[in-house]
Amino acid sequence: MNAAPDLPRAALCRLALETETWGGGLSPRAAEDYAHDLGVAPDVLERALACIPAAGRLAAQQRKKARSLGAEIVTFIDSDYPPSLAELPLPPPVLHVRGRLPRLPGVAIVGSRRVDAYGAEASTFFARDLASRGLTVVSGFAVGADAAAHRGALSAGGPTVAVLGCGLGVDYPAGHRTLGDEIARCGAQVSEFPCGLRPQSWHFPVRNRIIAALSYGTLVVQATPRSGSLVSARLALELGRDVYALPGRIFDERSLGPNGLIRDGALLVQHPQDIVDTLPEAVRCALRATQAPAPAGTDADGMPDGLGGDLLGLLRPGEPLGPEALAQATAKAVEQVQAALIELELAGWVRRFPGGTYARRA
Amino acid sequence: MNAAPDLPRAALCRLALETETWGGGLSPRAAEDYAHDLGVAPDVLERALACIPAAGRLAAQQRKKARSLGAEIVTFIDSDYPPSLAELPLPPPVLHVRGRLPRLPGVAIVGSRRVDAYGAEASTFFARDLASRGLTVVSGFAVGADAAAHRGALSAGGPTVAVLGCGLGVDYPAGHRTLGDEIARCGAQVSEFPCGLRPQSWHFPVRNRIIAALSYGTLVVQATPRSGSLVSARLALELGRDVYALPGRIFDERSLGPNGLIRDGALLVQHPQDIVDTLPEAVRCALRATQAPAPAGTDADGMPDGLGGDLLGLLRPGEPLGPEALAQATAKAVEQVQAALIELELAGWVRRFPGGTYARRA
Repeated sequence: MNAAPDLPRAALCRLALETETWGGGLSPRAAEDYAHDLGVAPDVLERALACIPAAGRLAAQQRKKARSLGAEIVTFIDSDYPPSLAELPLPPPVLHVRGRLPRLPGVAIVGSRRVDAYGAEASTFFARDLASRGLTVVSGFAVGADAAAHRGALSAGGPTVAVLGCGLGVDYPAGHRTLGDEIARCGAQVSEFPCGLRPQSWHFPVRNRIIAALSYGTLVVQATPRSGSLVSARLALELGRDVYALPGRIFDERSLGPNGLIRDGALLVQHPQDIVDTLPEAVRCALRATQAPAPAGTDADGMPDGLGGDLLGLLRPGEPLGPEALAQATAKAVEQVQAALIELELAGWVRRFPGGTYARRA
Repeated sequence: MNAAPDLPRAALCRLALETETWGGGLSPRAAEDYAHDLGVAPDVLERALACIPAAGRLAAQQRKKARSLGAEIVTFIDSDYPPSLAELPLPPPVLHVRGRLPRLPGVAIVGSRRVDAYGAEASTFFARDLASRGLTVVSGFAVGADAAAHRGALSAGGPTVAVLGCGLGVDYPAGHRTLGDEIARCGAQVSEFPCGLRPQSWHFPVRNRIIAALSYGTLVVQATPRSGSLVSARLALELGRDVYALPGRIFDERSLGPNGLIRDGALLVQHPQDIVDTLPEAVRCALRATQAPAPAGTDADGMPDGLGGDLLGLLRPGEPLGPEALAQATAKAVEQVQAALIELELAGWVRRFPGGTYARRA
């Protein structure tokens, strides 16, 4: 049925979930009621039922075609069907997998086809880092943000899954053939569409639900306000997954999408560690360690210097110290320390407690 | 006392709050206890008390000096002292005001001295828009973000207040003399420091508390992670004021400060309207109307087209419609509409309700 021409995809996903109950045949009247209950048109149900006699032959053809492309077919009832996909309201009944499905769920990285240098760099950076820790980077094989994510993961030798908006064996997007081969070697290309099916515009948002479902969370790198990436983010939320967003400049249309997500509650991420921190503890513990994030740069703009700076170095939040102890520690006169402390207080660096002790503000 | 040399500023702010009680003289023993209670060093209290005999003469000198610079002195007990400043734990006892204090509180715009083109453009953009609505733009007269904010407000002919980190009459920062004159004409330059006092590094964070206090909220445009602007933001929060932050690129050190503020709960702002929306209703109603924000750009990336697009145009969140009604509205067959609806459902654009009706997702 998955390969039958002209059978709406949503209808066949819904029907596939019900295979057990309707496989035995239905009276015309029962079929009409059933179609209504399922929310599919009666003629669609009719066409679906008409597939049954030839189903075995068609399925064998499909498997053969997949194998000729180096792929395998995994169905909803197979043991290697990704459990996280089954959480979808309308899971794809059939997956075509070229390569080997790596550890899932992973982390999705999605975004505009028209990323700029910032978006491409961020996509690559996050993907490379996450893959180097052993996390699977899931994306949509499109040009732009997706390709940068896959390439970033590959550059770490790490696992990546490309979910296609067309069938396997279609050279789309043009120029991605080599990238596809590399992905199949280090992970998998996945499609719910029959092998050889050309992409259509509605395929991409449909494909996005798989990306969201295969991931603990979805990072939106750059997206215009009506981009399909925002639909992916919403789907992720509805599946109870996290949404991460890359902040960007307000004058950059491609950052309006992620900035808006952040305003709506998505997690602003500045570093891949921010994503790792949200993963279940068991997952985090199983990850390969990577080097700590580069220390954020500092500057001395407005920072206290001299004795004030020394005192700040000694004080901690929640542990108030008196001027006498600080005078001893800095080898300064109590009066000097006291004067420096109230300057620090005035500037908001420290807080005074009853009795004249001071602690650094949190 | 405000003009006495070598009297720590925080100490004199605290002592000024207590003038009524200690003006009458204290025994040495009482003075020591009192100094301890106030958290000032005994020798500081002694020096403060020593100011009293010459205070009248010194105050007259200060007023004369201020007038020679075209400024007036406003003290904590004067009726034109800004009420919002009095909310500070350590309000400045004396203000030197060159120009005329406009309507306050305003909105503070602060940021790094080393803004890039993005930071300068955003600072100018927000300031110009807010000033054109009649809101006072408060900033710190520094180079970079501050100067861009003042200039943006001035370009709208609008009110702006510059809070200085030095006394009036000091040409600092170099090259800002003309800007200062323009600010005094359209608003005011304000300093708590005696006229002619050269800037010192600790003046700037001290000055920041006045910026925060004079404003409903503080917008941080660009700031490195340890910038004084973040202290301003913290002070604003502690005064119960809003903190707004301009999102920026994660690889840009100057955006690490605002991005971090957003992660910690500051409001991500993409447009001045976002700030206006947070103001008390009475303030918002009194503002001059400005043109609506430019519509955020759209693209067709992943948007449904054809019948799906038409259906999306007809559906609203929370108002489910059945396929029959939609078929009538689009002059299509019910089956076609039904097929398009489940494609939309699959892609996450619409939600199916019991009975087979559909509504657009919010």
